[in-house]
Amino acid sequence: MAASKLLWENALVRIEVEESEIPWYKIFTQHPYKEMSEVPSKTKELLYELLDTIEREMLSYYRPAKINIASFGNYLPHVHWHIMARFEEDSYFPEPMWGKKQRESKLLLPPKELFESQLLISIALKY
Amino acid sequence: MAASKLLWENALVRIEVEESEIPWYKIFTQHPYKEMSEVPSKTKELLYELLDTIEREMLSYYRPAKINIASFGNYLPHVHWHIMARFEEDSYFPEPMWGKKQRESKLLLPPKELFESQLLISIALKY
Repeated sequence: MAASKLLWENALVRIEVEESEIPWYKIFTQHPYKEMSEVPSKTKELLYELLDTIEREMLSYYRPAKINIASFGNYLPHVHWHIMARFEEDSYFPEPMWGKKQRESKLLLPPKELFESQLLISIALKY
Repeated sequence: MAASKLLWENALVRIEVEESEIPWYKIFTQHPYKEMSEVPSKTKELLYELLDTIEREMLSYYRPAKINIASFGNYLPHVHWHIMARFEEDSYFPEPMWGKKQRESKLLLPPKELFESQLLISIALKY
């Protein structure tokens, strides 16, 4: 995994951009909870709402084949969720992004900057 | 992936047992929604509550190194969540279960039957 950059944050959570051929974001709790069941309900609700918001924006903007969501943390035991837009022609589809590479991808997507601007507006209207 | 057996269901969701060396359950929506953002709020809340309940029971019973949660559906575009208890000595740790195998596992765990009985009681007390 390459370095991540901060997209948005508040007192409870932060959204980072994962460097990848696909649209891929990570939502971390600001406090380093290890497991989701330790996360207070207000933060937990915000995490799920943000996953929902990012998913809706991805579906509308990129028209992906599928949305993938995951929370592992085996290397970094600090609650963080991955949300990814997947495409039939991406390098790993239909395998998860952690699976076996399927092909050399020639993925052509609309500009990420516009997606992120729209996502930030959508988040700003809610929080 | 091997065959799954039904552990519990109601009108909205069903929990299946995944055959695996690790404790691994799948929660499906009964209706075949493709993406999580299409799932009605009552069903969505139930999914998240069941993930929370299974996680808490897994942490208490198995004392795993980490809980892993994922929703992919690239092969089967019907909303279903995976929840897995992970151990440092399982075959894939710290990789996700979809990643590269790390070792031949010699995982010794307490009986699954007792875990599932306790989980079913915990669910029955709530729903």
